[in-house]
Amino acid sequence: MSDATPIPIAGKPPESLVLGIVGLGLMGGALALALRRAFAEDEGRGRGGRRGGPRLLACDTDGHTLTAALDQGLIDEAFADPAPMLPRCDLVFLCLNPSTLLWFLETWMGAFKTGALLTDIAGIKGSVVAAVEKNLREDLDFIPGHPMAGSEKGGFANASHCDFRGKNYILTPLKRNRPENLAALKALIRRLGFGRITETTAAEHDRKIAFTSQLCHVIAAALIDCEEDLEITRFGGGSFEDLTRIAMLNAPMWTELFIENRAELLKRIERFEGSLDALKALIAGTNNRALEEKLALVRDRRTRMSLYPGPCD
Amino acid sequence: MSDATPIPIAGKPPESLVLGIVGLGLMGGALALALRRAFAEDEGRGRGGRRGGPRLLACDTDGHTLTAALDQGLIDEAFADPAPMLPRCDLVFLCLNPSTLLWFLETWMGAFKTGALLTDIAGIKGSVVAAVEKNLREDLDFIPGHPMAGSEKGGFANASHCDFRGKNYILTPLKRNRPENLAALKALIRRLGFGRITETTAAEHDRKIAFTSQLCHVIAAALIDCEEDLEITRFGGGSFEDLTRIAMLNAPMWTELFIENRAELLKRIERFEGSLDALKALIAGTNNRALEEKLALVRDRRTRMSLYPGPCD
Repeated sequence: MSDATPIPIAGKPPESLVLGIVGLGLMGGALALALRRAFAEDEGRGRGGRRGGPRLLACDTDGHTLTAALDQGLIDEAFADPAPMLPRCDLVFLCLNPSTLLWFLETWMGAFKTGALLTDIAGIKGSVVAAVEKNLREDLDFIPGHPMAGSEKGGFANASHCDFRGKNYILTPLKRNRPENLAALKALIRRLGFGRITETTAAEHDRKIAFTSQLCHVIAAALIDCEEDLEITRFGGGSFEDLTRIAMLNAPMWTELFIENRAELLKRIERFEGSLDALKALIAGTNNRALEEKLALVRDRRTRMSLYPGPCD
Repeated sequence: MSDATPIPIAGKPPESLVLGIVGLGLMGGALALALRRAFAEDEGRGRGGRRGGPRLLACDTDGHTLTAALDQGLIDEAFADPAPMLPRCDLVFLCLNPSTLLWFLETWMGAFKTGALLTDIAGIKGSVVAAVEKNLREDLDFIPGHPMAGSEKGGFANASHCDFRGKNYILTPLKRNRPENLAALKALIRRLGFGRITETTAAEHDRKIAFTSQLCHVIAAALIDCEEDLEITRFGGGSFEDLTRIAMLNAPMWTELFIENRAELLKRIERFEGSLDALKALIAGTNNRALEEKLALVRDRRTRMSLYPGPCD
């Protein structure tokens, strides 16, 4: 992917960009790390990229995080106040919880550089897209995104646990997005290691994510809620561990995601409950053959799911 | 672990044993592989073990599997008929589905070698222990076991996907078990790489496993049952994949396990449904703070679970 000719953003090749990261949490930190690595690799291959690739600016409310990011060489400049940073950034990754993102856009809309490209990482897209379509400055471009590569261990300190390689990245482009910006952002995302970029609508994103992500977190939480034995892992063979790892969730963020996507999530919970009830009835009943047939169908469907779609766009 | 003085079985050190594996499926094959590796490692370290460690005999109904196991050097002798094999084995691993295990014990009880030690790998222990306590020959010893190290990919061909290192092994010893046999089996299990051996009762095993293993498989199956989109993995970020990998299950075996442990499993499903309903109500309601507090409690409990107990007995 990184062998393709770089597509300019705001008229500049990626190596010459000033790139801003708003919020150095788990994902902001992981993006900084992946950016450094992506461009350091090019340098290592003698491709003549500017040392360190794009200039990385970051703002965060936590001073310790900013200091750590500077000390580790992940960013070039740190800002406690977005005011002096935003007017310099050609490309901005907004790495904030949904509610903070909406607040930030409202508060700082006037500060972004003319013609800048913005993108976000929020796990819910409907409310983000609505806010952007309503309030975005005419000269700015905003491509909503969702990198599907989190970790149950949150915060900047765990950014290195986020492995982007081969992961999904979902974009929900707006009609007004400039095609060259979309192409450039996709090229950059691939350069960070992501394996598959899917473009869809915000509504479709929120429907699908209610299932693949939010319902799974609700189930993991319910599994832990119904068992009090802290030594239960003595009886674990991997299934319990795999199903409940994500129960170590970031409670404030997931509360927001659940509430923001409440209608879709409740529908998904109810569909899941319907399937669980059907399985329960088969287990309670005397028709073992019917239970076995249902399990064989499930096995077949999951196996086919793991084959679709191809490795990357 | 393997530095400890070997504990004899039937008066012989492990290297001199004749060890029989009945059923070369996923677990039978994985045990053969782990046994070869464990003793080959000793040889490599110049400990003077007999080449290949214990002599491995295996019987299976599938001729191709036996040929493959011989060709790969995993076993020394293959048998389609248990009759000539069983009278030679000092130690027998019965690697069969629960119903086949009960049938096998009833059919072949007369054929085992005098004083042999038997063990099994079935995922349900109540019915196995009941059958053994009722029908076991006086001169034999049978220690029921459950290696917690399966794979959603079943069969001998996938045996190498079973990694025993650091995994749990549960034993549900009988009152009549000879202490020296129990010690010897535990030493051998550790030598195969397992990290933690838990001794408990069959009833406790079945209660705990209904939660950590069977409920998790039912949930994974229900998740797949309620989603028809085969391309849903485009929207996966790891949670969905982790929660549903085990839906690629061995349908006949899991049908048996669910049915055999029906009462405990139904209780666990209902407890889980109670927790899921409570979470659903919190998501549907307006008290976001209560939802966040519940999620924080869950996070805390799961984090503490991952710390208990220590790495190994």
